[in-house]
This record gives sequence, C-alpha cells and structure tokens, in this order.
Amino acid sequence: MVVDGCPPRVPIDLEAIQRDLDRRRPGQSRLTTPRSEADRAEILSGVFEGRSLGTPIALLVRNKDARPQAYEEMKDVYRPSHADYTYEAKYGIRNWQGGGRASARETIGRVAAGAIARGLLATEGVEVLAWVRSVHDIDAKVDVERVGLNDVEASLVRCPDTAASAQMEARIDEARERGDSLGGVVECVARGVPAGWGEPVFDKLDADLARGMLSLPASKGFELGSGFAGTRLTGIEHNDPFVPGQDGAPKTSANRSGGVQGGISNGEPIVMRIAFKPTATIRLEQDTVNSAGEATTLEAQGRHDPCVLPRAVPMVEAMVCLVLADHWLRQRATDVFPR
Amino acid sequence: MVVDGCPPRVPIDLEAIQRDLDRRRPGQSRLTTPRSEADRAEILSGVFEGRSLGTPIALLVRNKDARPQAYEEMKDVYRPSHADYTYEAKYGIRNWQGGGRASARETIGRVAAGAIARGLLATEGVEVLAWVRSVHDIDAKVDVERVGLNDVEASLVRCPDTAASAQMEARIDEARERGDSLGGVVECVARGVPAGWGEPVFDKLDADLARGMLSLPASKGFELGSGFAGTRLTGIEHNDPFVPGQDGAPKTSANRSGGVQGGISNGEPIVMRIAFKPTATIRLEQDTVNSAGEATTLEAQGRHDPCVLPRAVPMVEAMVCLVLADHWLRQRATDVFPR
Amino acid sequence: MVVDGCPPRVPIDLEAIQRDLDRRRPGQSRLTTPRSEADRAEILSGVFEGRSLGTPIALLVRNKDARPQAYEEMKDVYRPSHADYTYEAKYGIRNWQGGGRASARETIGRVAAGAIARGLLATEGVEVLAWVRSVHDIDAKVDVERVGLNDVEASLVRCPDTAASAQMEARIDEARERGDSLGGVVECVARGVPAGWGEPVFDKLDADLARGMLSLPASKGFELGSGFAGTRLTGIEHNDPFVPGQDGAPKTSANRSGGVQGGISNGEPIVMRIAFKPTATIRLEQDTVNSAGEATTLEAQGRHDPCVLPRAVPMVEAMVCLVLADHWLRQRATDVFPR
Amino acid sequence: MVVDGCPPRVPIDLEAIQRDLDRRRPGQSRLTTPRSEADRAEILSGVFEGRSLGTPIALLVRNKDARPQAYEEMKDVYRPSHADYTYEAKYGIRNWQGGGRASARETIGRVAAGAIARGLLATEGVEVLAWVRSVHDIDAKVDVERVGLNDVEASLVRCPDTAASAQMEARIDEARERGDSLGGVVECVARGVPAGWGEPVFDKLDADLARGMLSLPASKGFELGSGFAGTRLTGIEHNDPFVPGQDGAPKTSANRSGGVQGGISNGEPIVMRIAFKPTATIRLEQDTVNSAGEATTLEAQGRHDPCVLPRAVPMVEAMVCLVLADHWLRQRATDVFPR
Repeated sequence: MVVDGCPPRVPIDLEAIQRDLDRRRPGQSRLTTPRSEADRAEILSGVFEGRSLGTPIALLVRNKDARPQAYEEMKDVYRPSHADYTYEAKYGIRNWQGGGRASARETIGRVAAGAIARGLLATEGVEVLAWVRSVHDIDAKVDVERVGLNDVEASLVRCPDTAASAQMEARIDEARERGDSLGGVVECVARGVPAGWGEPVFDKLDADLARGMLSLPASKGFELGSGFAGTRLTGIEHNDPFVPGQDGAPKTSANRSGGVQGGISNGEPIVMRIAFKPTATIRLEQDTVNSAGEATTLEAQGRHDPCVLPRAVPMVEAMVCLVLADHWLRQRATDVFPR
Repeated sequence: MVVDGCPPRVPIDLEAIQRDLDRRRPGQSRLTTPRSEADRAEILSGVFEGRSLGTPIALLVRNKDARPQAYEEMKDVYRPSHADYTYEAKYGIRNWQGGGRASARETIGRVAAGAIARGLLATEGVEVLAWVRSVHDIDAKVDVERVGLNDVEASLVRCPDTAASAQMEARIDEARERGDSLGGVVECVARGVPAGWGEPVFDKLDADLARGMLSLPASKGFELGSGFAGTRLTGIEHNDPFVPGQDGAPKTSANRSGGVQGGISNGEPIVMRIAFKPTATIRLEQDTVNSAGEATTLEAQGRHDPCVLPRAVPMVEAMVCLVLADHWLRQRATDVFPR
Repeated sequence: MVVDGCPPRVPIDLEAIQRDLDRRRPGQSRLTTPRSEADRAEILSGVFEGRSLGTPIALLVRNKDARPQAYEEMKDVYRPSHADYTYEAKYGIRNWQGGGRASARETIGRVAAGAIARGLLATEGVEVLAWVRSVHDIDAKVDVERVGLNDVEASLVRCPDTAASAQMEARIDEARERGDSLGGVVECVARGVPAGWGEPVFDKLDADLARGMLSLPASKGFELGSGFAGTRLTGIEHNDPFVPGQDGAPKTSANRSGGVQGGISNGEPIVMRIAFKPTATIRLEQDTVNSAGEATTLEAQGRHDPCVLPRAVPMVEAMVCLVLADHWLRQRATDVFPR
Repeated sequence: MVVDGCPPRVPIDLEAIQRDLDRRRPGQSRLTTPRSEADRAEILSGVFEGRSLGTPIALLVRNKDARPQAYEEMKDVYRPSHADYTYEAKYGIRNWQGGGRASARETIGRVAAGAIARGLLATEGVEVLAWVRSVHDIDAKVDVERVGLNDVEASLVRCPDTAASAQMEARIDEARERGDSLGGVVECVARGVPAGWGEPVFDKLDADLARGMLSLPASKGFELGSGFAGTRLTGIEHNDPFVPGQDGAPKTSANRSGGVQGGISNGEPIVMRIAFKPTATIRLEQDTVNSAGEATTLEAQGRHDPCVLPRAVPMVEAMVCLVLADHWLRQRATDVFPR
C-alpha cells in the first residue's frame, strides 16, 4: 500500500496506524468474522526518524491467515451479489482464492492511509468520527454534536446509543446463527473543517466524499446533511439561516446543508450517512449459476462477517480523512496571495 | 465548454445537443425560471463534416439574457444555503453577478457534453433515461423496466406517473406563488450496459456515478439499487440470485444490486436515485448576514426555479452518460488480449 | 483555450496576453509567414474586475484569416515530415483544411496561457526569457546572465547577438526565396526560481520542461545546462562546487547543472536549449505519396514560415512559464508545516 | 513498486523481470559500483498463475546490502551536483542514509515495471533496444537498423562497437582509479511501433519520451531522430520523403524524423539519444558547503559508479517501454469504431 502526496515533516505514528488497523481487523469481537489476521504494518519507505519525507510512504501488511482452500468451493460458482461474476466478465481472469481486490481485506490499505491523513488533519484541528446509526431496522439516537470516540468504542457494534447497541448485538448474533447477514447505516461527522475546502463543478467536496463512500465494499448509498429526508421540506424550512459568528465569520443556526454549500465547506460540521447492504456471502443456501452457465446452489462455508457495520466505521473514517486531506492540500496550493 | 476524450469518427449531431440543451433550458415551461436564455450552441473545434476528429470538442453557448443588475441586491449579502459565502471564503473574490460557477447555468456544459457521450453510448446499445420520482412528499409510481422518453416528456414535471405529475405541478405552482421552493428525487436507469464496466477499489462504477450526481447543484444524496431501504433487508432477502441467461451469460432474477456488483457492471439495468434539496434562492424573507458580518434579512428578487426537479432530469442523464462513456473507454483500453 | 488551475486574485492583464500573442503572430515581420491573423483574445470566463476568480479562464481567439481552399492541394497528399499521415493513421479522419491541431496555430493557446502563468510567476520574482541561439549553422554569442528582453526584441530574428542576427536574417531571406526552410536552436533562462521546485522520480522539473519543449511543433531535442556537451567532461570538471551564499543558502560557483539537481531547482538560473527542425512545409518539389498510396510529388503553395525560430521564442517562454507555475503550486501544496 | 494499468491476462515472467534487474544491478562487472545488492524481486499482488489480473502489480525488492554508516560523512555536507541540497531545500527533511529517492537505486522499480511493459509490447511485435553510443569523447559506430541484444550484451560497457567498447572500458578504468567519473550518450531504438501512437499537443509521443528520459538520474539531454544536428540541415535536406510501402501504407525513405511526426508514431523505427552527465559522487576532493552554510571540502568514500552508462542502458529501455505501453493503451481506448 502506497500513500502518495503526504507532505514532508508530518509525524507518522506507527502505533496510531496499528490502532486503526485493529479497529478494522476481523476477529476483534464475536460479532465479526473469526479470521484472526494479525495485520501488522511494516513501513517500507517515506518515513525517517518518525516523520514523513514527502515522498511516497509504502506500507506492507502481510496476510498471515489466508486459507485459499477455504475458497475452493467458490472457484467455479458465482456468489450472488458478490463480485465473482463481474470480475470474470471484466478481466477474463480471476483470483478465486479469497476475493482478490473485491475482498474487504482490500480496505486495510485505506485504513492505514487514512490514519496518516488523520494525523495530518489533526495538525489543522480537524477530527473525524463515525459510528453505527442503524443495523437492520434498529435505529440509534445519537447527538451528532456531542458524541465522542469513547462513546463509540465502548460498544461492540460501535453504536454510541447503549440501548440500541444491545439490540443490534442480539440481532447480529441471531443472524449469524441463522447463516444470514444484516446491513445498516454508518453516520460520520468531520469537525473543525474550515470554510473553503472543495472545488466547484466536478470535484465538489461532497462529490468526492460520495465517491469515497461508494467506493467502500457493500455501500449502496450516501447522503449529506438533510439528504433524502430534506427533499420533503420546503426552501424556507430547509435553508440554513446565517447568523453572525463569534470570530466575525458567519455561522449557520441550523446545519441541514451538512457543512457543505456549493461543493465547498462552510465551517460547520460535515455530516453524512452511508448505507451498507447486508453482507453478500452467507451460509444459507442460494440459487446461482456456475462458470459453465448452469444453475446450481451455494452454501458458503468461509469465515464471513454476519454484519459489516462495526468494521465499516473505521473504513468510513479513513476515506473521509483521505478526501479531506486531499482537499486541504488543494486549497493550500490555491490560496497563494494575501487577501 | 470542452469535451476531451471523445474518440474519432463519432457522429456529432448538433441538433441532438440542442435538444438536450432545450430540456435543460430555463423558461421552457411555467414551472421553471422565466429567464429566456436562448442557449444556442456553437461548435468551435473538434468536429469535421459531422464527425468527431478525436481532438477536444469546444462548444460555446453565450448567455444572451444575463441581467447582472438583478443580482445587485446580493452583492454584499450571503444567500442562505447558497454558495455565496463559501466562494468568498475559498477564493477571497467572487463574481456576484449571477452566481458564477455556482449558478445552475454551469450545467449547460454538462448537458452538451452529455449529449455527445449519449451519442457515443448509443453506438454500443446503451440508453440512459431519468425522470422525477418525487416532488416534496408526492411520490410517483414508475415501472423502471418499461418507462420511455415519451412518457417522461409528456409531463411538464418530467414525471411519467400522470396522476402524480398533476399533483406535483399544482404543488410547484403553489410554492412559486408563495415565494417558496421544493425539492425531490430523480430516478435514472441505464439500460444495455454490458457486464465489465467499472474499476475496482477507488474508481468503482457506482463511486464515479455517486461523484457525478453529488457534483450537480442542489443534490444531497445518491443511492444505487436498493439503496438506504436495502439496509433493512437481510442477506438472503437482498442478494440477487443468478439464473442462466439466454445468451449463456448469467442473469439475476432480481436487481437490488442496481446493476453494479463489486464496482463493476453486471449487465442488468443500472438504477439510481438522486436527492435534490429545495432551491436555495427564494422570495420569502430570510435571516442572514452581510459581508461585513452584520445580521440582516434577504428577500431575493431574481428569476429562480421554484423547483429544480424538471430541469434536473437532463442534468442527471448527462452526468450518467459522461461517467458511462469514460468507463467504456477505460474498459476498451484494458481488454486487449483475446480471451 | 482554457487555463485551469490559476489561483484566485491574480491580476490578469489582457494587454500582456495580447503582447505575447503578437510576438507569436504570423505576419509580424517579413521573416515569418505572410498570413495576417489578427489574433485578438477575448476572455470568456474566470476573470472579474481584472483579477482571476480561481475558476477556469477561457479565452477565445478566432481565426479571421483562414483560407481552407489554400490547403485543397494537400487534401489527399501527405506533406513529408508533417503530421498529415500520422493523423490519418491515428484517427482515420483528418481536417485537411489547415493542419488542425498539428498547425502551429495551436500554439496560440499555449502563449495566452503562458502569459497568465508569467504574470503569476512575476509575483514570486521569477522571470523567463528566451532567444534564438542558432539558425542553420550560424551560432550566436549570448551572455546568459545579462541578456534582457529589449536585446531580444531589438532583433527581427529574436537573436540578441547583433552580428549573428543580421546573418540569420539574410540566411532566412535566402531560404524563403529558394522555397526552402531552416531550423535552429532556442535558448531559454528562468531567473529567480527558488530552490525546491520539482518532484522526485517521474515529475522532475527538468523532465517536465523536456516534455513541454518536445510538445512544441517541430522540436527535436532538449538539453539542460551542460547538456550533450557536458558528457565530454569528467566528474571533477562537471560538478558545480557549492560556495556560501550571501543569504546563508548555498550557491554554486558554476552552473553546468542548469539550475536543477536531482530534478529539483537549486536556486541558480535554469538554462535550457531546444532544437527546432527546419519547417516541414516548403515550396520546393518533394517526393511523397497520396492517400491512395501512390507515388506523387508536392510543391506546397500555402503561406508558411521559412524559419520557425523567431516565433518559437514566445512559445518556448510560454511552456517554461506553464511548467514552472505548475511546480510552484505543487510545492506550495506540499510545504505545509513550519520548518 | 507498483505497476498500475497493466491489462489482464498478460503473461508475467518473473525470470524476465529478474534478467532486466540483473542488467541494472550494481556490482555486475568491474566497471560498476562494487555494491553487491542481490535485488531479488518478490511479486506481492496482481499476478495469478503466471498472468496479470488487471489489478495493480506490486513488487518488492529489498535492499540486502544497505550500509547507512557509509553515508555518515555526507550527513551534513552537500555533495556537489547531487540532490542533497535540493532535497533539503524542498522538503526540510532528508534521509541522508543512501540518497533516498535521489539514489540510482530508485530505478529498480522502473526496470522491473519496464520488463512487464516489454512483455506487453512484445505481444504487439514491438522491440526496444538501447546501447552506449559514447563515453566521454569516445564515439561508437552503430548500425541502428541491424544492432541486436547480443551485440550489446557482449560488451561490458554495453557498446556494440567492439573497438570503441574496449577504449571505453579502459577510459572508465582509468577514471575509477583516479577517483573521477565519466558521462556519455545512450542511444535507443524502438522497432515495430505501428503508426498512430501518441497524442497531439501536450502528450506527444516524443514529449512523453523526453519526459521519461529526463526523469532518469543524471540525464541532461534528449534528442529524437536528427536532433540537434538536424537544425543544421535545410527543409529539403531534412524532410523524409514518403514512398509507397509494401503493405500499402506509406514508408519514408529516410528517418530524420526518428519515427515520430506531429507527436504521433509513423511506423518507422523510433530513434533517440540521451545525454548522461558524469556521475556526481566522486572520490576526488571538492569544494562544497555544509548544512550550516560553511565552506568545507568533501572526498566521497562510498561505493559509486565511475560511469553510469552501462547500467543506464536497461534504465532507458525500461522508460521507453513504459511510455510506449501507455500510449498503446491510450490508442486502443481511442480507436473504437471500424474505419
């Protein structure tokens, strides 16, 4: 995994990287897949005496617990709603031993890179935090302004609403026992982003956030601020009135915009929600076809998450950190002249 | 406006471009802003005897009906939930005479370029169609498999459900009279996309579609296939079973995936929905601040859409065409060897 | 022509753009092609009250003096050493009416954009100046450290060595009368570039300069500092010794490196030379083939430069300005933390 | 090292990669640095059962023979004409233990990636071959059309002119004994490139080749075809007459264009020359300054090449292969419609 574009002289904390990798790691609780990948990161380049050199940072995380034979059953059978068939169609060749780049294992690189971006953003006072907002039909109540990392990490599900968290755990346990799986929604806030990040037209800040989120495995939707529910308000109900801020800069008295207006951050918290479908690989018998095009059935035997949501939380944070860090540097390059 | 990357020898139909520009144009019905921008496109380069040269295609659409003085009132006042303040914060300079790149007028270039991409995709048998799925709290019933362009264009609102369309018209009229505005949801389908378009990891087909959609003015959300509602299903309910197809390639008996699996098209229709917030510029009095940081109020006097949805339909189609055409060419460049 | 990436609040001087366009313009002296293209630039976007908005700057320069019929003779005949055949081979379609993108007219956009970049660089104290170093076998003597714009512009050939300039003029007149053409070498210096611009590995400052220069029509070679001649020195002869500078930063007591070491500027003047072949389009009869693959001959009748060198000077400057401005902004984006 | 953009189903031959790495490797003959880096490549991703997967190919070559303490002397002293100072100026931090990315060791990644590109090009019938054309003032005579890999590899210097090769060897031995170093010129030909590769304007084939060559450590110049010498010919002498080819496509009866016209390949051999300065790190005493800005002297003690030319040959070939492979794929993506 290579991180390109990290400025020089950024403190690189291997322990912080490892901490985020551990939050992503399978086998961290009974709610996630029992694979016990150690996921130890080794820095190969780009760091010298604890600081970035300004050149690409290469990290290596070897898979200590790969079991290619566990995937033998799926060699010639397309798992429904997984990427087996589309990879075959696209590439005409497929590494069937574990899902290749369509495996959630691919997100290790995102999380490690995200930890570096998080360190960079911290120097600017930006904090990114995500949590599970819903699992299946269980919705949590979360105070977006107040919730903190400890509230999230106190829950196995990474849901800071204790009551909802308990229900979610039970629901996930039940799904795992049944050989079924569940989806849900992750919510994420970025606090401390100053006004002015994001580019007009195609590289809007929210457009790049949407791309980052939809690039995560199993994600099916993205919304910013009021999102889909906001379409049911009228303009006068939806607009965020400006009020004088304490530092002279305007503030808004509501945040239905979710911190972005016209594709550019307005200084308010950036708030978004991401939909994750139920994990595609399940133990229950499913109809499918094999690579010869014949109808067959599949009961997947591998070790898989009954619910990706708890591990999706650090993935979402990582992608948000990467997108924000990129836009910060773009704005730095742009804001050349004294005002 | 410059279209880069159009292959050579593509028929370029200026009339087709003009047709899409007219669908986007303000003043086309009483539901849209009364500005009567003629929006005539002139081709400056890249086309010879009706076909593309393979070099950039430049088009020029002059604004015949700009009224900078109409924006005078907004010179020093930030319109709530518009981009005035964020542009000022980002750039330290702002063309206040009409919104600049934050004006919906910016989408002319997208629609013209999209019309060229649409022509290219048509040679591959791909068709892209969008419609209004909801306005405010009025939801349309639309058969995604059957709906056609005529059904959409028969409605002023571009909603193919006649009953819902009538209700939407009335609701928009009412909002306009009140000086308020409405939002809604556009739904879009791409039919005939073969399996294999899209790249793994960051440039997934759905990730690039999400980015394209969130880059549109006023959009606040994106979902593919089952989207947010799909998070309330279990894996066995959500997965799309594969069944043998007539041509030997697998088909799915449901399409909750929305035509994309693992970031790559699977040959099924690509179905997505995009949330558009109520238009920010309204006539009703709103609290805001001026550029000196003082509290004030604003009653916008310009000519503005009470509901962007009918005009958002061609914008959505254009961005989908552009994303798909890019991915088609990427796949062409990749699929080099005989299988 | 669109300039992307210009920071906001840069003074944009249309007269300065026009001045550089006039230096590039055909018909400016008897040494260049008699086409009298007026080349008036119109700014379409990105500038407000004389300063850049930070969004793309579009300029339009219409061709008032195109004579497509003058190219009729070349419709089916490939001009030797021109791009007619390669465009046909690449694109399978060709605008034969004037050379299309392979016409030197394409460089108008470079020169206009370069003038904007030049204005940006001036705010940082960077000055870019080029001149004709040789025409055919006539070599000028130029003091790279002292030569100024007036010395260059005082010569029709843009060669600041008065004696050589006169010889070059005579040689070019003679070639034109004969229906033949001449090549030569342009030398360029960038003064005031601070140490630290350029990226390691692929985007070295000299690599990007080389690319910019070889992208100019008719260029066949590039060298930096000692260039090809430097290969005949030994290490001890070639190395530039460091000496303490007045401001504490190291200086070099020679500049065989040409201002770039390891791909990154070292604070010394950046010095390069670019080879331009003799103009391909000549009046003398030449052997060639037509598009049917049959042998034929060609005596080109159009209006063409007998020697591109005088007009190549502003083109070289423009590309150097563009490359330097890009690298300045990249370095700005990188140099985030206090040292 | 990561190779992005390799199409799927390309045979990946680890032995071929290793072969090119061995040609680049220090310590391969008495003419090169005595470091004995084993340079064994390990494939980490992107290859399955001997063929590319279409996803990034990561290779790892660990440095088994790093001796950071050997660089201790250069920790605070800037080597003349090396990148120590410019890296310090750019990044404000520098890994002084071996040169970091400014070390020629960086080219391992280029050579490994180039070997993959070479395999890809071979499927299209393209062959890339380089050799040493001159060392110091010793010029070789080489028949560009006939020379083959065995002719080159038979010489320690990689110069196919046996007599010149012997002289070059002696000259290099002498320089090494003296503690000095030598430069020279590498010539390279690409045979079998079809007409139509390369893009107009900025991404001309020769522009990208120039960039690739100037991105190599120690290179100071690039020329294509007739290059700088061609500026001393007139148009009628320089133009390459077209003649009917055997397959109906035009051929040229000379190749002063060097295989590229208007930035696009014309089907003739692509011929270029690259100037490499004498190695900067020498044992002879030199004047320089230290990081405190004080005058001092340096006698470098590390293990360094007295002449980079023999090892530059595979580096040049690698970069040419990479540029050509990129342009092949670009043209594939472009040439969509039947002609």
